[in-house]
Amino acid sequence: MPERDLIAAMRERLGSRNERLLVGPGDDAAVVRSRPLAVTSVDTVVDGVHFDLSACSPADVGHRAMATALSDLAAMGAEPGEAYVALMLPTNLGSVVALELVAAMEALAERSATTIAGGDVVASPVLAASVTVVGWAERESDLALRSGAQEGDLVGVTGVVGAAAAGLALLQGRRVDLPDHVRSALLQRHLRPEPRLAAGRALARAGVSAMIDLSDGVATDAGHIARSSGVRLEVTLEDLPLAGGVDCVAGACGESAAEFAATGGDDYELLVTAPPGRRRAVEAAAGDTGLTWIGQVRAGGGLVLADAQGRGVTLEGYEHL
Amino acid sequence: MPERDLIAAMRERLGSRNERLLVGPGDDAAVVRSRPLAVTSVDTVVDGVHFDLSACSPADVGHRAMATALSDLAAMGAEPGEAYVALMLPTNLGSVVALELVAAMEALAERSATTIAGGDVVASPVLAASVTVVGWAERESDLALRSGAQEGDLVGVTGVVGAAAAGLALLQGRRVDLPDHVRSALLQRHLRPEPRLAAGRALARAGVSAMIDLSDGVATDAGHIARSSGVRLEVTLEDLPLAGGVDCVAGACGESAAEFAATGGDDYELLVTAPPGRRRAVEAAAGDTGLTWIGQVRAGGGLVLADAQGRGVTLEGYEHL
Repeated sequence: MPERDLIAAMRERLGSRNERLLVGPGDDAAVVRSRPLAVTSVDTVVDGVHFDLSACSPADVGHRAMATALSDLAAMGAEPGEAYVALMLPTNLGSVVALELVAAMEALAERSATTIAGGDVVASPVLAASVTVVGWAERESDLALRSGAQEGDLVGVTGVVGAAAAGLALLQGRRVDLPDHVRSALLQRHLRPEPRLAAGRALARAGVSAMIDLSDGVATDAGHIARSSGVRLEVTLEDLPLAGGVDCVAGACGESAAEFAATGGDDYELLVTAPPGRRRAVEAAAGDTGLTWIGQVRAGGGLVLADAQGRGVTLEGYEHL
Repeated sequence: MPERDLIAAMRERLGSRNERLLVGPGDDAAVVRSRPLAVTSVDTVVDGVHFDLSACSPADVGHRAMATALSDLAAMGAEPGEAYVALMLPTNLGSVVALELVAAMEALAERSATTIAGGDVVASPVLAASVTVVGWAERESDLALRSGAQEGDLVGVTGVVGAAAAGLALLQGRRVDLPDHVRSALLQRHLRPEPRLAAGRALARAGVSAMIDLSDGVATDAGHIARSSGVRLEVTLEDLPLAGGVDCVAGACGESAAEFAATGGDDYELLVTAPPGRRRAVEAAAGDTGLTWIGQVRAGGGLVLADAQGRGVTLEGYEHL
């Protein structure tokens, strides 16, 4: 299918859920009636680096590219608005694959009240997708940055962790005896991460002092908050809320479940800090997603991972402090 | 250089020219105080497809990626605001090359009052860059779409055309006897296109009815306006304002200069339509860039390229009507 026809076929699959969209795909640029604050992030996935088309479907790739970008809006507490998709397509890929990928992006966008308002489709020797998402907020106090954590705050995490890393291990052929529904839930968490958009907005408004999404894992992402805020985060590994089956997969990999979960990426849960006085409000804001308190913010710098007795734990390959 | 250090080195090179930028690179997303209308476009360039690192410098690549994206804002008449850069870097490329590329993006951004406010750097088997630019406008009437051309309007083009295609032919080794300053001007137009941002803003406010940037050449891009507006554009090939030396290069390629210029891409001049009553205002708005009237808008559909006697000219490989 020539590029022009492919682009036309893609456009047909895109819906507008956005009364503020004045000009959509097809002009030199999209035009959107704005709200006071624009919140923008870009996420890029490349075949062979971030995914492997031999182990996942084109729809998984499309979903994942959109999900990881939207997760950044969740971590800011922004309301999702528009997405702009740059698609780099090998000429041998075929339009069916390209349309399947775009359809999965569109399906997640639809569920997330996001309009794919524009983009670019180009030929490329390697399949890659770069998604720019724009969210909106009425005022700065509705958003949560990485830099607001303060001494005395609590550290919390939404949902459960370790699931995506466990799913990846299973996908890579790690043999673990698991009930079918547990296995498929872990695979799903790796292949189809869900951005915590509603929880992120509610948490930001409930007064979290800092927030980040877990793309690289607690052991890395908690360190980002520590650095940005100029504080030390102490996280008790045993308090991490593990997804069902993570202990078995970690065991099969020869690791402790907590360390496996702390260093495993792609969970796209939200890590927050909050003053003790906001404890109940923050728990309520997490809603059905759930929130577990896993540590405290101290004076100093860096991240300390501790065992149940409060002793520092050093993870191989991770710099602390 | 590890990715984290490379990103830090890139950030050091980025300036903020934007009092509305509340949160820049380093958080989950950038936060910008918005103006009423957000105008957003994405442009992606891939090594071996849109450029060839063996024939141009990393700085040329960075410049070109930023320039082609900004050119879309010029074609809307939007005021440039922020750019978000997704950089796909082969691991063997070296940080010097990556930083040279980013420095050239930043240099053009600086001259264009654009702030690089965020982005993504990932490993990739092939060098590619996707640039999302966001421009702003106060009201819809300050912008120009592709869809506003009306029967009776004049068709005009800024600057001169054919230069980038001539530069490309020279770069590809076409032997043409040209004065040095003419040769280097043509190469420059190919390697370092300049988005017509100031002219675009002024033209939109001066009352052009439609506008597009020439990325694919008059023979293609005028057709886009015709389709979007539901009108026929008639362009007289002999009236195209040719860059100096284009006639010689076209001759060496065995083509007429006008057809060479009409089908050559990457000039990034602006093609406009305007009611006859706005003729003087539009000419004045083009300022030093200059504007040449090259045709008329008629009832009907499609694009007609005509010779000086008004006879239709068919270009090989181009669909008209």
